[in-house]
Amino acid sequence: MKQKLRMGMIGGGIGAFIGGVHRIAAALDGEIELVCGAFSSDPEKSAASGADLGLPADRVYGSFEEMVDIENKRAPEQRMQFVSIVTPNHMHAAPAKLALQNGFHVICDKPLAFNLDEALELEKAVQQTGLLFALTHNYTGYPMVKQARQMIRHGELGEIRKIVVEYPQGWLSTNLESTGQKQAAWRTDPQRSGIAGAMGDIGTHAENLAEYITGLKITELCADISTFVPGRLLDDDGNVLLRFENGAKGILHASQISAGEENNLNIRVYGEKGGLEWHQMEPNTLLVKWLDKPSQVYRTGVGTLYPEAQACTRIPAGHPEGYLEAFATIYRNFARCIRARQEDRPPDPLDLDFPTVSDGLRGMQFIERVIASGNSTEKWLSI
Amino acid sequence: MKQKLRMGMIGGGIGAFIGGVHRIAAALDGEIELVCGAFSSDPEKSAASGADLGLPADRVYGSFEEMVDIENKRAPEQRMQFVSIVTPNHMHAAPAKLALQNGFHVICDKPLAFNLDEALELEKAVQQTGLLFALTHNYTGYPMVKQARQMIRHGELGEIRKIVVEYPQGWLSTNLESTGQKQAAWRTDPQRSGIAGAMGDIGTHAENLAEYITGLKITELCADISTFVPGRLLDDDGNVLLRFENGAKGILHASQISAGEENNLNIRVYGEKGGLEWHQMEPNTLLVKWLDKPSQVYRTGVGTLYPEAQACTRIPAGHPEGYLEAFATIYRNFARCIRARQEDRPPDPLDLDFPTVSDGLRGMQFIERVIASGNSTEKWLSI
Amino acid sequence: MKQKLRMGMIGGGIGAFIGGVHRIAAALDGEIELVCGAFSSDPEKSAASGADLGLPADRVYGSFEEMVDIENKRAPEQRMQFVSIVTPNHMHAAPAKLALQNGFHVICDKPLAFNLDEALELEKAVQQTGLLFALTHNYTGYPMVKQARQMIRHGELGEIRKIVVEYPQGWLSTNLESTGQKQAAWRTDPQRSGIAGAMGDIGTHAENLAEYITGLKITELCADISTFVPGRLLDDDGNVLLRFENGAKGILHASQISAGEENNLNIRVYGEKGGLEWHQMEPNTLLVKWLDKPSQVYRTGVGTLYPEAQACTRIPAGHPEGYLEAFATIYRNFARCIRARQEDRPPDPLDLDFPTVSDGLRGMQFIERVIASGNSTEKWLSI
Amino acid sequence: MKQKLRMGMIGGGIGAFIGGVHRIAAALDGEIELVCGAFSSDPEKSAASGADLGLPADRVYGSFEEMVDIENKRAPEQRMQFVSIVTPNHMHAAPAKLALQNGFHVICDKPLAFNLDEALELEKAVQQTGLLFALTHNYTGYPMVKQARQMIRHGELGEIRKIVVEYPQGWLSTNLESTGQKQAAWRTDPQRSGIAGAMGDIGTHAENLAEYITGLKITELCADISTFVPGRLLDDDGNVLLRFENGAKGILHASQISAGEENNLNIRVYGEKGGLEWHQMEPNTLLVKWLDKPSQVYRTGVGTLYPEAQACTRIPAGHPEGYLEAFATIYRNFARCIRARQEDRPPDPLDLDFPTVSDGLRGMQFIERVIASGNSTEKWLSI
Repeated sequence: MKQKLRMGMIGGGIGAFIGGVHRIAAALDGEIELVCGAFSSDPEKSAASGADLGLPADRVYGSFEEMVDIENKRAPEQRMQFVSIVTPNHMHAAPAKLALQNGFHVICDKPLAFNLDEALELEKAVQQTGLLFALTHNYTGYPMVKQARQMIRHGELGEIRKIVVEYPQGWLSTNLESTGQKQAAWRTDPQRSGIAGAMGDIGTHAENLAEYITGLKITELCADISTFVPGRLLDDDGNVLLRFENGAKGILHASQISAGEENNLNIRVYGEKGGLEWHQMEPNTLLVKWLDKPSQVYRTGVGTLYPEAQACTRIPAGHPEGYLEAFATIYRNFARCIRARQEDRPPDPLDLDFPTVSDGLRGMQFIERVIASGNSTEKWLSI
Repeated sequence: MKQKLRMGMIGGGIGAFIGGVHRIAAALDGEIELVCGAFSSDPEKSAASGADLGLPADRVYGSFEEMVDIENKRAPEQRMQFVSIVTPNHMHAAPAKLALQNGFHVICDKPLAFNLDEALELEKAVQQTGLLFALTHNYTGYPMVKQARQMIRHGELGEIRKIVVEYPQGWLSTNLESTGQKQAAWRTDPQRSGIAGAMGDIGTHAENLAEYITGLKITELCADISTFVPGRLLDDDGNVLLRFENGAKGILHASQISAGEENNLNIRVYGEKGGLEWHQMEPNTLLVKWLDKPSQVYRTGVGTLYPEAQACTRIPAGHPEGYLEAFATIYRNFARCIRARQEDRPPDPLDLDFPTVSDGLRGMQFIERVIASGNSTEKWLSI
Repeated sequence: MKQKLRMGMIGGGIGAFIGGVHRIAAALDGEIELVCGAFSSDPEKSAASGADLGLPADRVYGSFEEMVDIENKRAPEQRMQFVSIVTPNHMHAAPAKLALQNGFHVICDKPLAFNLDEALELEKAVQQTGLLFALTHNYTGYPMVKQARQMIRHGELGEIRKIVVEYPQGWLSTNLESTGQKQAAWRTDPQRSGIAGAMGDIGTHAENLAEYITGLKITELCADISTFVPGRLLDDDGNVLLRFENGAKGILHASQISAGEENNLNIRVYGEKGGLEWHQMEPNTLLVKWLDKPSQVYRTGVGTLYPEAQACTRIPAGHPEGYLEAFATIYRNFARCIRARQEDRPPDPLDLDFPTVSDGLRGMQFIERVIASGNSTEKWLSI
Repeated sequence: MKQKLRMGMIGGGIGAFIGGVHRIAAALDGEIELVCGAFSSDPEKSAASGADLGLPADRVYGSFEEMVDIENKRAPEQRMQFVSIVTPNHMHAAPAKLALQNGFHVICDKPLAFNLDEALELEKAVQQTGLLFALTHNYTGYPMVKQARQMIRHGELGEIRKIVVEYPQGWLSTNLESTGQKQAAWRTDPQRSGIAGAMGDIGTHAENLAEYITGLKITELCADISTFVPGRLLDDDGNVLLRFENGAKGILHASQISAGEENNLNIRVYGEKGGLEWHQMEPNTLLVKWLDKPSQVYRTGVGTLYPEAQACTRIPAGHPEGYLEAFATIYRNFARCIRARQEDRPPDPLDLDFPTVSDGLRGMQFIERVIASGNSTEKWLSI
């Protein structure tokens, strides 16, 4: 009998946005069960959240340290098998390290850490423990993103020349953080978010998507970083010129003051033979453009797609899968790799396709360099 | 502590499409747990499916009769609380009636039954037992469908004049049923599907959507029903003129030979003051058109929407929710109404918003009349 | 030296919409010159319109009879060579016949005539005189319409099974004719428009487009014809089931009370192998859909299109050509055929591609039958 | 009687693309007549082109000098009244100056000149002669561009914060110039195009559009300019960070190696209260986005638009006007201003809305600075 993997959650109490997303993503494919949690650093809030989620009181903890400690003492067949970390950025590294050191695999929200030093330490901890570590750069979980990556890997577009990746949002066009809105508050607070605002929160998603889809590393960047809303302490807009390792040129811009935009992550990639275009808000469509031939509309579930795209498609074409399903794909692949390890067999290569601590470190380097470039009069900074 | 509701499933063994959809939909919001099932009329297949789903062997049954019988004998706190029926059409009525008669609430795939007689009996059984019955006309679970319904109810478009509802698919453009494809096989088999092919499988969704959104009943119809693929035994295309109770006119067409179409359910409604347009394949957008003013693009999660739309929105604007989330909304509302009943309190009115046995009966009437019209030389048949 | 063809216009005085369109369409390609006109049945208005257009006073006439008479007496190298008729429907047949009988080629706005009898007479006049007659079913002038027609002719979609053609407008959602709006007034007046309102004004465009693109004739129809706006004398909405000569089924609906719609003529055609979709409001795109392969986006000027499409493309891809250009294509082809005749050579076959008196007669038959069906309790009427 | 204005053309012989566009644009509104031309520096080619256009042989010249000279000697009522210059960039300044010095108004293709010095001289010539000078930055002629400009001018979006303007094309993805393709040849030739390739040909359109719509001047820029196609002598791609006078930030990128793109000029502008988005390839739509309210789809001809937008709309909503109509608007406004001057009255302020020599000078400054920035290690250059 196939048992569900047992997950403990850190953060994500009542009122949090991303905690609920992680729980749905974990539950969606029926392979993971939430068995315990330390949902808040406030024990009462944690208890209330746990009760609301239907957990027995003795599996709800007042702190992540307590959770790791007590779960460790439970019988192996009952003990949690991995932790999901969904706290603000400044609370990623400590619980992740503690969990790893106590033998628990970790899946963690992005960005990886509060700063580059923490990120490097985390990478070391993963390497030393040999445990599995996933970072929820969830946008890589969409079938059409995987199709795009494979088309480029297989040379269908030829050598890549130009990449335009955008991530405009408008929800921080006003000083929302001053109204007590919880999501806005921590994201604009240097004590919890780190040195970057928009560039950390969503700029890293854009960087990750561009490198994931093209398989190319950014080598140099030149940034203009701005804070438009009076009183705001971190950036809310950034425009960046990019240079890639193969000579390709690019543009990355991310913004939370692009009034009227929802969550408009999108990317266009142009090669010698053709181009492609993908929009997160209509994620099941991949537009592929050719030199002087009709464009093609690739769609989730239609025709012969690469196995990587098929592997994360759950339902027939025209039945839209969305954000939660893409997020669930990260969880599912991560869970299947844990299961393979438990069963002492190599994982299916398709299941290895999830963002790791290295992607997280890369993101932290990007944050550090893009903010540095914003403050610099030098044109190009290397990364 | 809030416990999950316990669900037993009938049908949906390995290889079925809609069974997996129901399981994800039930799991997604963390309010329902699959505890048992009779996944196939073949006991071996049922057992294999149950094991694959991680169920203990003693909760996997060889028939729905056995499941109802044995579950009934279990302790109340362990016993399943409702059944989910995901079999082909000819196997809806018998398990539904048996479950109702044994005190289990029922959620059932559409169309309601094999024929109108069965549907009428089911309606009677629901009335007699007073139990809850939900029919998964899942497309009514989308936030923008609910927004559309409320805008019309509140008179924003004025008196409705014209309704165009379409459901083109292309997947049965060839004789797929002759290749052994399981989904095609039963849907085109009069012994399992009933008198209608496309009109039953998807035409009823279109009928249901039109009546749900407008709040208007179809009173007369005039149909041209066709079978294009040689050797096919049921209709694969239908074009229907509609007349509604208030004098509005309409068109409904559904097709499974519209080559190249995925699952393109869509509707346009025009009133005296404006019109609206919704497409299932881009479900988070509702286009609202006005007499000589700019159109408006309503979007899930943006601005002030009606409570009915908000109540089935899980994540912020621009993070696309799709088919599975809309399906999950039906399960969630149904589950919450069961819970209210258990707790002896009236349900939240918003949770009452799911399709019932009456909607299912209406659908069976539509099927019966639309096929009759297709065979008739009379212009208008009443419904 | 290549001289411009000399055109005389009947109708289209100050304040008319379609007269201005015809003048731009005639001028656009530099092959036609407006040399005279009878712009109104009111000589003063005609004179004012002519002056406004920069015509010498002696080439502006008080009636079409006068124009034909006097122009006929001019020297051949100065005399008008064809007439353009842009009056309301009830004033098409008389000037057209007179012009033909006096040796002038005719280009005429649609529908062809006030009623079927007039249409038959006109067809006879064209046959007897052997002169050229064009009808401005302008939507056939778009490059992507021509591409669609050729793809079907060459069998790219296989045998055609289903056709959906729509023409929703919303501008007559209120009783605009009672406000004195000139366009609304004559179109809703049985004395000037004939037996049909919307079905004549735009339903015939839809009928013409469907038959032009598919090359198939409608053989039977079943219509539900409505007048929604109180006090209106002619239909403002019609829904029609269609059957085509090869067994294909179809739907045609046209409406002027679809609130919020501009001029949304569109068509979808499905064959055994694939389908296509075209929208007049985004006319340079033709979506081509395939069984289980990515759709293709054909675009004006991109890649290898059929010569018929190329022949009416003036500028490079991505420089949108619109309604006036498509209209101009009708004029240009008509003019080139006149020129070929003057030069006593066969016309380029590509130039023969414009709607003729036969298409106009077909449209009048459609109007007659669709209105008859609307009034009939018989299900199917043949056409 | 209103006579047409008499135009002489310089350049635009057989085989040229832009010459034909200018002729259609001039003819479209019936206010301008082509009376003479020097269509090529090769007198034979010029003569052949003139004959093909139906001009009398004595109005077709072997050089622009000859044309200016002889036309000047004709009777005023016959003489050309303005010249249209449609030659490659290196041949703009000389004929323009000569025409101005001989009393002819000038309308000229963009960019204004071969280099900044020539541009400054031309500006001086215009100032000294007091004659009218229009530059065909045709994209400003679209109704929805004018609507966008007015909405911003009237503060509807609040203070502007961010501007993203893009102009991707793909037609120079290969070394087309080596195949003898005439359009590619001169555009990639420093002797005829000047110091810039893509940035001059289309980058200036993007710069002009951004400044026109926002009413804001670029004050600093930082560019990464590339040549991707081996053997090419000028840039074929450029990515530019922008800073505007009011503190707004921006991005401009233009490319002719964005494989699969047609002519995809587009712009997004974000202010404190909302944003807007316009795409040249679907020019009759202007998307206006708001903070937490449904977006609005402004459309040519729908509802109450600013007079500037209405003034360049020729036909009712839903009848798409395109590139040629927008181009014609420049010609029409220019012509009406000439006519006003002839009639010794002030022009209608709406007619003054066309790009002038100052806009052209601004474009030349942009070209000079953007290429300098591409070659510089300094981060920001002022403009």
